[in-house]
Amino acid sequence: MSSSMNTPELPLASWARRIAPSAMQDMLQNITKPGVFSLALGLPAAELFPTEGMGQAAARVLAEQGGALQYSATLQPLREHVVRMMEKRGVKCTPQQVFLTTGAQQGMNLLVRLMLEAGQSVMLEDRVYSGFQQVLEPYQVKRLAVRRDASTGLDLDAVESVLKSGERPAFLYTMSDGHNPLGTSMAMEARERLVKLARDYRMPIIEDDAYGFLQYEDTVLPPLRALEDRGVFYVGSFSKILAPALRVGWVVVPEQMVFRLATVKESSDIDTATFTQRIVLSFLDSGKLEEHLTRLRQEYRTRRDALLKALETHMPKGATWTKPTSGMFVWVELPEGADTTALLARALETEKVAYLPGQAFSVAGGRSAAHCMRLNFSNCEPAKIEEAVARLGRVLAARG
Amino acid sequence: MSSSMNTPELPLASWARRIAPSAMQDMLQNITKPGVFSLALGLPAAELFPTEGMGQAAARVLAEQGGALQYSATLQPLREHVVRMMEKRGVKCTPQQVFLTTGAQQGMNLLVRLMLEAGQSVMLEDRVYSGFQQVLEPYQVKRLAVRRDASTGLDLDAVESVLKSGERPAFLYTMSDGHNPLGTSMAMEARERLVKLARDYRMPIIEDDAYGFLQYEDTVLPPLRALEDRGVFYVGSFSKILAPALRVGWVVVPEQMVFRLATVKESSDIDTATFTQRIVLSFLDSGKLEEHLTRLRQEYRTRRDALLKALETHMPKGATWTKPTSGMFVWVELPEGADTTALLARALETEKVAYLPGQAFSVAGGRSAAHCMRLNFSNCEPAKIEEAVARLGRVLAARG
Repeated sequence: MSSSMNTPELPLASWARRIAPSAMQDMLQNITKPGVFSLALGLPAAELFPTEGMGQAAARVLAEQGGALQYSATLQPLREHVVRMMEKRGVKCTPQQVFLTTGAQQGMNLLVRLMLEAGQSVMLEDRVYSGFQQVLEPYQVKRLAVRRDASTGLDLDAVESVLKSGERPAFLYTMSDGHNPLGTSMAMEARERLVKLARDYRMPIIEDDAYGFLQYEDTVLPPLRALEDRGVFYVGSFSKILAPALRVGWVVVPEQMVFRLATVKESSDIDTATFTQRIVLSFLDSGKLEEHLTRLRQEYRTRRDALLKALETHMPKGATWTKPTSGMFVWVELPEGADTTALLARALETEKVAYLPGQAFSVAGGRSAAHCMRLNFSNCEPAKIEEAVARLGRVLAARG
Repeated sequence: MSSSMNTPELPLASWARRIAPSAMQDMLQNITKPGVFSLALGLPAAELFPTEGMGQAAARVLAEQGGALQYSATLQPLREHVVRMMEKRGVKCTPQQVFLTTGAQQGMNLLVRLMLEAGQSVMLEDRVYSGFQQVLEPYQVKRLAVRRDASTGLDLDAVESVLKSGERPAFLYTMSDGHNPLGTSMAMEARERLVKLARDYRMPIIEDDAYGFLQYEDTVLPPLRALEDRGVFYVGSFSKILAPALRVGWVVVPEQMVFRLATVKESSDIDTATFTQRIVLSFLDSGKLEEHLTRLRQEYRTRRDALLKALETHMPKGATWTKPTSGMFVWVELPEGADTTALLARALETEKVAYLPGQAFSVAGGRSAAHCMRLNFSNCEPAKIEEAVARLGRVLAARG
């Protein structure tokens, strides 16, 4: 019947050989066990998904569109919706500059594949979304880490000094709003200075705005793409504002980039799952997005406030944390010397509470964030957040 | 407001700079114009999609599964369904060897990313699915083309002689059933000899079985994966048997490959669109797949017969073509000297009929298939097929 080849090893490229079933994967399994009070993952609140609206949209699409399940070209009307959404973010663009993707992660992955030459360097903040580092994995790439401080923001002097030293990174990857993992947003002057630096040194910027539509205060600043239309490659997503499992996102790029993205995407997965694109389009056509976003912002604001209040009550002396105006995360810094990676096992065991250790967001696995943790506030109701932080407080107190 | 960076060019890796809006893209636009009798694309018949069953499945998923729109882990029950489907193809595997993808194209893309080292060679048939060549585009890769003849099949002497010469390709890419573009299937002895060669020379095989469940005769041969479980990396898909826009496919690989695929997929698009996976699962749970497949095979068999009959009537002297027992395509060879690429413009203009020129399937754009064309029989009803071939016959006759 079936037989065994006499190969001792799998046929893998050398970088792929180094992929190991990660400790993180094990950790994720523990974190998501039932009964765990988890502030760990970046999950939106499932109970707030517009499930009924999506059901109606899916039914409409299947009943009315003969080609809904067939291969089909990109949906122009959905790109037009994105243009109008971007306008609300202060960004002017055309439907020809919008490219639809299977979520923000794919947007980043495709951009990196097009923009990064093997051997080039890239500039990253020293607290950075781990999924972006995963994108870089197959490339032999020098990672230039610049400080992004929870309180003082991106260290633009450091950015300038790296550029002055002659480094020419393929791009800088950053998030101006609802930063993952810090939860911070950049000040207006910082946005302007960063864009100026990028122009002066012709450094492209990949701007990840996955949380940009989740704003909790009256003052909302424009993303970098609003200040610079050729040098900033903008990545957006419906995952955090509608639902992740639909896998619909977009990028806004110069028009000459779009057919290249289409070519790379074609080779990746033929084309975006147009069935779910159609569901998103039908939902947007029904005019329910604004109402849904208002509700979402209101509820997430309440949850953020619950988390900040609980931290005031339960965190040990010496701990500091960010006060986000957008996104889903609060970043906690314990006094230097604390080891949140080691502490997580104890937190799970003794108090069934989970967070993500700072180290998960360090460039190339460095230890500079080993005393930090990322807490999510979007996925749990306020009472559960309060209970989780109380538990976390006990774990930290016991550390002693 | 927005300003312009003084960069004369986009920031692109050198291979990406070479991507051009392809002549093929233009051609595809002409081909899909309303009123064109097109036998060009590999489209399943949309009128045969189980749209009602899918609608019911979508409604069930949204009504009954709270996490349907949330991030979620891979669906074990769907992998178990795949195992049972593979059994019907003569393949024994476990759910732990099944990895779910966003369609077959993603399966191939992820496998290539893991298996191919820059600078390595790969072995391809000289008539090969163009989407697979697209996957290779970003890599500096030597393409070893071996003859796959429409009548004599894959030239295994040539495969052996290349291997004997010392070449050690990263893999051979092939399709044993319903070959795209040839429409042919391999004889049993050829399958056995190929697997033996692969074992002897430790050459991995990527087996693309996207059309393997579309069989029109009583005798169905097992895919290569049934003969070899470690050296054959199998790619399957629901796109041709359910519906492409759902974007659900799978690979069957050694278990130690699965966490590596998960890592690369995570960095590509976080995870498969589990919403559409859930719809597929719910449809399979309803037990309607077999009935649907029976209907599909019956109708596609009728359409294949209509195409073959029309070719007998309308093809010029000297033309030959394949008689497929599976898949969606017939491969036509005109006498040497014919140029089907040049002819297509005339076919569209004078008779509004379309096919794909053989050159689209040549390795590295070679001209060895310039006198050939690929005709699809799944997407049009028999009467339309007959009309399309009549028109094509007139175009070829006028060619003189």
